[in-house]
Amino acid sequence: MTLPQTVRAYRSNREGYRKLQLTEGPLEQPKAMEVLVKVHSVSLNYRDIVIARGLYPGPAIKDNVIPCSDMAGEIVALGTDVEGWEVGARVSANFSLTHLDGDPSAKTRANALGAPIDGVLREYMTVPVHSLVRLPANLSYDEASTLPCAALTAWNALVGLKPIKAGDYVLLLGTGGVSIFGLQLAVVSGATAIVTSSSDEKLEFAKRLGAHHTINYNKTKNWDEEVLRITGGRGVDHVIEVGGAGTIARSANSARHAGCVDLIGFVAEGANQIPVETVISKALIFRGVLIGSVAQFEAMNRLIEARDIHPIVDKVFPFEEAIDAYAYLDSQKHVGKVVIRVSKN
Amino acid sequence: MTLPQTVRAYRSNREGYRKLQLTEGPLEQPKAMEVLVKVHSVSLNYRDIVIARGLYPGPAIKDNVIPCSDMAGEIVALGTDVEGWEVGARVSANFSLTHLDGDPSAKTRANALGAPIDGVLREYMTVPVHSLVRLPANLSYDEASTLPCAALTAWNALVGLKPIKAGDYVLLLGTGGVSIFGLQLAVVSGATAIVTSSSDEKLEFAKRLGAHHTINYNKTKNWDEEVLRITGGRGVDHVIEVGGAGTIARSANSARHAGCVDLIGFVAEGANQIPVETVISKALIFRGVLIGSVAQFEAMNRLIEARDIHPIVDKVFPFEEAIDAYAYLDSQKHVGKVVIRVSKN
Amino acid sequence: MTLPQTVRAYRSNREGYRKLQLTEGPLEQPKAMEVLVKVHSVSLNYRDIVIARGLYPGPAIKDNVIPCSDMAGEIVALGTDVEGWEVGARVSANFSLTHLDGDPSAKTRANALGAPIDGVLREYMTVPVHSLVRLPANLSYDEASTLPCAALTAWNALVGLKPIKAGDYVLLLGTGGVSIFGLQLAVVSGATAIVTSSSDEKLEFAKRLGAHHTINYNKTKNWDEEVLRITGGRGVDHVIEVGGAGTIARSANSARHAGCVDLIGFVAEGANQIPVETVISKALIFRGVLIGSVAQFEAMNRLIEARDIHPIVDKVFPFEEAIDAYAYLDSQKHVGKVVIRVSKN
Amino acid sequence: MTLPQTVRAYRSNREGYRKLQLTEGPLEQPKAMEVLVKVHSVSLNYRDIVIARGLYPGPAIKDNVIPCSDMAGEIVALGTDVEGWEVGARVSANFSLTHLDGDPSAKTRANALGAPIDGVLREYMTVPVHSLVRLPANLSYDEASTLPCAALTAWNALVGLKPIKAGDYVLLLGTGGVSIFGLQLAVVSGATAIVTSSSDEKLEFAKRLGAHHTINYNKTKNWDEEVLRITGGRGVDHVIEVGGAGTIARSANSARHAGCVDLIGFVAEGANQIPVETVISKALIFRGVLIGSVAQFEAMNRLIEARDIHPIVDKVFPFEEAIDAYAYLDSQKHVGKVVIRVSKN
Repeated sequence: MTLPQTVRAYRSNREGYRKLQLTEGPLEQPKAMEVLVKVHSVSLNYRDIVIARGLYPGPAIKDNVIPCSDMAGEIVALGTDVEGWEVGARVSANFSLTHLDGDPSAKTRANALGAPIDGVLREYMTVPVHSLVRLPANLSYDEASTLPCAALTAWNALVGLKPIKAGDYVLLLGTGGVSIFGLQLAVVSGATAIVTSSSDEKLEFAKRLGAHHTINYNKTKNWDEEVLRITGGRGVDHVIEVGGAGTIARSANSARHAGCVDLIGFVAEGANQIPVETVISKALIFRGVLIGSVAQFEAMNRLIEARDIHPIVDKVFPFEEAIDAYAYLDSQKHVGKVVIRVSKN
Repeated sequence: MTLPQTVRAYRSNREGYRKLQLTEGPLEQPKAMEVLVKVHSVSLNYRDIVIARGLYPGPAIKDNVIPCSDMAGEIVALGTDVEGWEVGARVSANFSLTHLDGDPSAKTRANALGAPIDGVLREYMTVPVHSLVRLPANLSYDEASTLPCAALTAWNALVGLKPIKAGDYVLLLGTGGVSIFGLQLAVVSGATAIVTSSSDEKLEFAKRLGAHHTINYNKTKNWDEEVLRITGGRGVDHVIEVGGAGTIARSANSARHAGCVDLIGFVAEGANQIPVETVISKALIFRGVLIGSVAQFEAMNRLIEARDIHPIVDKVFPFEEAIDAYAYLDSQKHVGKVVIRVSKN
Repeated sequence: MTLPQTVRAYRSNREGYRKLQLTEGPLEQPKAMEVLVKVHSVSLNYRDIVIARGLYPGPAIKDNVIPCSDMAGEIVALGTDVEGWEVGARVSANFSLTHLDGDPSAKTRANALGAPIDGVLREYMTVPVHSLVRLPANLSYDEASTLPCAALTAWNALVGLKPIKAGDYVLLLGTGGVSIFGLQLAVVSGATAIVTSSSDEKLEFAKRLGAHHTINYNKTKNWDEEVLRITGGRGVDHVIEVGGAGTIARSANSARHAGCVDLIGFVAEGANQIPVETVISKALIFRGVLIGSVAQFEAMNRLIEARDIHPIVDKVFPFEEAIDAYAYLDSQKHVGKVVIRVSKN
Repeated sequence: MTLPQTVRAYRSNREGYRKLQLTEGPLEQPKAMEVLVKVHSVSLNYRDIVIARGLYPGPAIKDNVIPCSDMAGEIVALGTDVEGWEVGARVSANFSLTHLDGDPSAKTRANALGAPIDGVLREYMTVPVHSLVRLPANLSYDEASTLPCAALTAWNALVGLKPIKAGDYVLLLGTGGVSIFGLQLAVVSGATAIVTSSSDEKLEFAKRLGAHHTINYNKTKNWDEEVLRITGGRGVDHVIEVGGAGTIARSANSARHAGCVDLIGFVAEGANQIPVETVISKALIFRGVLIGSVAQFEAMNRLIEARDIHPIVDKVFPFEEAIDAYAYLDSQKHVGKVVIRVSKN
């Protein structure tokens, strides 16, 4: 393959996603233990909108950062010391380049793509070999690009601390990216999935993906009581809590004693407090889920390939229309994932 | 309901199952914290044949013991201090009456039905309330009677120490009771199931139950190598090792590094040794599985009901033909479970 | 032993501990699966003050309830069906009579001594055999009476979800009952213990119990930063968070990534919120600790006896001065536990 | 620091340790993501004797291999892309260069120092940055050199699958390197340690290290029964089984129900079989322990430094007398570790 000498990348400077700049620069060369990856597809997360606005917590956002964390591509060149990978391999990079296994740390957070370090919204990028995972063979690049953040977060939530087992109840709030992956992964694991949404249409879609129970929270304001009714008063084993307005207290109420509320993404504080007294009196576990490790990514991909799970891609935008892709995600009209196709091949 | 004054029970005295005696005696009354259960169905396990021969290891077999451990019935009377249970409730007793949760112990072994203490092959029996579990609502008495020993053993093997997660590989040896339950539970948990047998017909049946791969070990003597091929060289996460002739070394070879070989039932020693060197060099886990606890039984029943799993009942014998039921099990012609229907209702 | 016909018990009616009534009534007889226990010593927890005021959350407080949950006594009579226990055995009852092993539940909460059901501040009480644990042989009744609530809570916090291992850091807030037990249990487990207090004298005492680091939070307002300094920036593995004013955010800041903040007892809401964003961005675990199970109690007692750990008893009051004991606890002058000696023997 | 141009290394060719050759060659340069380490001390394991004889199982032993796995040294040069490490840092390499966290695999076994790949018995070596761990600050190079294989194996055995907690019983067979580390780590973790030996003198030494009970198996042939007596009939939670003659059946008998027998090192098969029936009837766990990961090594070092644990170094030999060091280890006269001091500084 002939590689270009100049390549394009978007860059962001805390002015909102509408101010993303498409820039050009020289092709980066892989270091000794890196590979060069041609990016085929990138998927967006709500995190990317927040980062573009300069509001993301944690390690400082890099000036002029290349945004986005989720990519699927192919290896086009190998560093001089690389073993075990070959040109043409279909790969993703892990969300945190240094979160290989076990717990996250300050160090792994400092290596998260698209905020403290440059991300993936570009045509080519170098990736350290320890951060690579192979794509599930059953997925297209568009589909596989959706996995690194949203799917791995859902997987880590469900198996990272208190692994779900078949027959457990899982409550999914809404139909955003993490929730839909959580639904698919819970269903394939034999769990009973309950999904909430304000849209009957989205709930119908959730049912087609295997949801056993659905609740329209506009019609059933006290959806936590409905969850308790469905579970015979016991409550659910896991809540995938993605931080809607004022949901946390109802999530706590929906969980069984010693159940797990998996906190994901952004939750407006003040308006959405964890009810400490309920946590204690029901012995609940509130756990922050910080994406996941390379080892977890590999296990998830094994599952996705073995059970032929296909991520739900709502809409695909061309690279040049990346800002429209952001805007579409921001509109909250999507179900599943929004993808930017970087390469035309 | 009018209760009889005299009731029938089989009794055994280490002379083989053909010498089982059908005896009569007065109806037992429940103590304060016991219930009286009318036994509807009993299922057999290979253990019952061994006990009838007087060869079962562990705590001494009771003289003149009422055999069998697996029963489904209904509560017909309550002890004076019983709360939370009602006449008419459909129930099983746990295999060990005192294994409520957590690890087994010498004490829980001493309370195993049908060997150190009287078992279930009788028309009525008293059961302590702490040993009761409700039957899954979707099962008949015949079906539910198969759960206490074989299904719970398979469940404990898969989730007790290193819980399977969706996408894991599980190897099931043969198509006996535990293996078939292991297959059903692995499949519903999203695992990839590999089944071995000497019969293509039985393997076809396993496929209908969801087995993803099957191996006829008469045709493929080196079935462990076939398992490694199927798993891309990695090996399986769990082997349900039920102790056929000389299988253990191949089971160890089939397991992945740090994988789990779940030892169940009877294994002829000498002929079937654990390969110590392989255990160390692959960091394997060999785990003896001693049925399970009331808490595990409840979780399993929740799953069986939620996913509408139906145990495979091969054949049902009337109470008076219990010896024929033993003989049929002994013939190894069955796939799944052999049941004795105690009550005609 | 000759048993009295009438026995004394305190009773409480949500009017504060100063209104506790010492009442007399007939000696209760044990049911078939219960024992009769002569109460020797009772220890107080802050929970008892709150219950006396009628403010305890969860299942409704029984009218005219016998207060307190923590007792050490001896068996003086056996129910007709009791096996495995003998008159003279030194015992405690578990905090929840029905929390035998595994997770708590709504049912185990409904069986918590001293609130939804009658407690232990009386001369004699009946206890179901499944709720009994033997006292560590090295402890007096006064010492052993302190274990059921405070010690078991600390033990469950440290080993129940993410077990500490030697070399871990544990942060103990203050020098109340749970914190002091947490200190002793952490130290004997090989952990590095950091203790906070507003009193240098109490911190000296903590050092004598093995604390490796102490922080006077009156002098070091930003005690979380001091904790981070002590741990080389990494943070602690466990925080025993007993709910002082506005401590939770600092506790979250003190914990390592994926560390555990164990929520215990009462936390004024509004003033003391869990920082959701920090929970997510550090992948923290906030876990409500709801005392513990009989199985955990037995394991803890094995440790207390094996390593000859002695609970810290601050002061012992006679049965007739129980109200003074409450008042002394309320004054917060204590370090360790306040005990009421019920029996003069 | 001026680095030499030629450096010395021992090499071995399956002819026994007496045929080790001291060779000279050019100084290796670190690759981009490697560091150059000056080796100060090397410690021996029984594995090294077996490898020298060409008998080690698993991946093939490299021709002309540089032997030994355990080293402590200092970084003297950094590869071009190295971050986070500095010249002068005191480090070890992990036993398997690629076992970073989680389970071992065929791949991690293929990267074990001193057998499939060159080891550490040399003056200088390059190490990939991901394989490095910092030495505990309280240890000399001689002391720290003993950790990578023997100490980490003991640590992994005790905390890797079923973590010991304070109050547990641990049985240590003999007083070799792994057993002595197991003793020290168990004692500091609050466990009750039982040590066996044929020498009263060695048992005295074990007592000084904190052993709570000792058994001379020459005097007490049925040492398993003595273990059961000590534990009140319950059995131990962990057995560190290092494979003496015919010990395994007694280890199984010494373990509690659901207890763990940690299989380490070499066990003569045939003479020393795992009793399958006991494994099942006591629900035992036999686990092969394959050293450990970088993450476990770091946690262990944190403990060693925090509690100021000092490895037991029996004898130190100069680099030129490495063969004598092997012979001394082979004589089994040692208690603790045999060290070769490579550097005179």
